[in-house]
Amino acid sequence: MIFSSRLIEDAVAEFSKLPGIGKKSALRMVLHLLRQETADVDAFTEAISRLIHQITYCRQCHNVSDTEICSICVNTQRNPRQICVVETIRDVMAIEQTQQYNGHYHVLGGILSPLDGVGPEHLNIGSLLERVTKQGDTEEIIMALSPTLEGDTTVYYISRQLKHLPLKITTIARGIAFGGELEYADEMTLARSISKRLPVDNYVNVGPASGPSSDS
Amino acid sequence: MIFSSRLIEDAVAEFSKLPGIGKKSALRMVLHLLRQETADVDAFTEAISRLIHQITYCRQCHNVSDTEICSICVNTQRNPRQICVVETIRDVMAIEQTQQYNGHYHVLGGILSPLDGVGPEHLNIGSLLERVTKQGDTEEIIMALSPTLEGDTTVYYISRQLKHLPLKITTIARGIAFGGELEYADEMTLARSISKRLPVDNYVNVGPASGPSSDS
Repeated sequence: MIFSSRLIEDAVAEFSKLPGIGKKSALRMVLHLLRQETADVDAFTEAISRLIHQITYCRQCHNVSDTEICSICVNTQRNPRQICVVETIRDVMAIEQTQQYNGHYHVLGGILSPLDGVGPEHLNIGSLLERVTKQGDTEEIIMALSPTLEGDTTVYYISRQLKHLPLKITTIARGIAFGGELEYADEMTLARSISKRLPVDNYVNVGPASGPSSDS
Repeated sequence: MIFSSRLIEDAVAEFSKLPGIGKKSALRMVLHLLRQETADVDAFTEAISRLIHQITYCRQCHNVSDTEICSICVNTQRNPRQICVVETIRDVMAIEQTQQYNGHYHVLGGILSPLDGVGPEHLNIGSLLERVTKQGDTEEIIMALSPTLEGDTTVYYISRQLKHLPLKITTIARGIAFGGELEYADEMTLARSISKRLPVDNYVNVGPASGPSSDS
C-alpha cells in the first residue's frame, strides 16, 4: 500500500502486528485515531503504557493483578481449598464469567509442549506444588486445561507430582457443547460423552459452585 | 466482563473504542500486548503518539504529509493541471493504489451534509477555489466523491462555484462494479450505466492516466 506519510506507515505497521488485524483494518484504525481529539488518543496510548509498565502478577496464583496478591486470592468469601489449574489469565476470566466457581486459581502460564520446547520448568508448576504443600489443607485440584494432547500430558504430569498428597484431582467435563450437533461431533468427544454419561437430574442441576459429579 | 485488574479494564475500554473492535477482540489485543516485550509495546504506543502529535496536512491539497507540502504536490512528474477532489485522505490512498491517476488532489475533509450540520465553511472548498484561481492553468477538476445524495450535492455546489472558470469538470464513472452481478445492481446504477454506455474499444482501454471518455 502507498502511504504519503511515514508516520502513518509506521502506525499502520504497528497496528497490523495485533492479532486478527490486517493492513486494511490497521489503516482504518489509524485514520480513526487521526480524526479523534489529541487528548483521547493520548488516553489510549497512556492506558497501554500503564498496562505494560505497571501490571503485576499475583504472587500466589500468577493471575494478573494490580496488587501483590490478587482480588480472588484475598477474597475470604472464596474457598481456598479448591484450586483450579488453568493455562492463561484468559481462562480465569472465562471461568469467572460463568459465575459457577468459587475457589482459587493457579495460572500455569502455558502448557507442556516438548515440541515447542516448553518443559515443566517454564511453567508455574513448581509454585503449585509448593503452594499446595505449604497450604496443607487443599481438598481438590481442578484441571481446566485444553482437551488436547498437550493438555492431557500436562494434567498427567501434574497429577503424578501431586500423587503423594491426600487431595482429589479432577478435570472439567468433556462432552458435546450446548448447541453443538451430535452428528458433527468428533469421535473422541462423542465416545467420551457417552461413556461418561450423567443421570438427567445431575445434568439439569447447574447451580452455583456445586461439587463435581462423583463419577471419576 | 469481569477483569481482575483495573489496568486491563482500562486498556480494554480504550481498545474497544476503535472501529470494528468489540470487548472480546479488545481483550484479545490487550492479552496479546501483555505477552510482548515491553520495548515492542513501547514502539507501538510511540508510533501512535508520534503520529498524532507530529502529523501535518499539506498546505496545498490537505492530504496528510510529513512536510509542509506533500510528496504528491511536490512531484514534478505529476500533472498539476488536473485536480482530483476527494472526501478524505483514505480516498487519496485508494486512488493512488490504482496507479491510474497522475494529477494532483484536493482533500475536502468531508462532504456537504446539511442534516449533520456540515456546510461549505466546514470543508476545504474555499481553499480549492483560491488554489484554482491562483494557479490559473487548471484544466480539469475530477470529482471523485461518493455516489450518494450528499456527494452529488457537493459536486453540484463546487461546480457552481467554479462555473466562471475555463476548466472542465468531470466526475468518476458510475456503473456496475467488476464482478458485480447485473441482476443485483440497484435501478439507479443500472439505469446510469446503460445511458452512459461506452464503446467496447474504450472500455477495454484501461491504460495509465488516460483522459476521461469524451461523453459528458
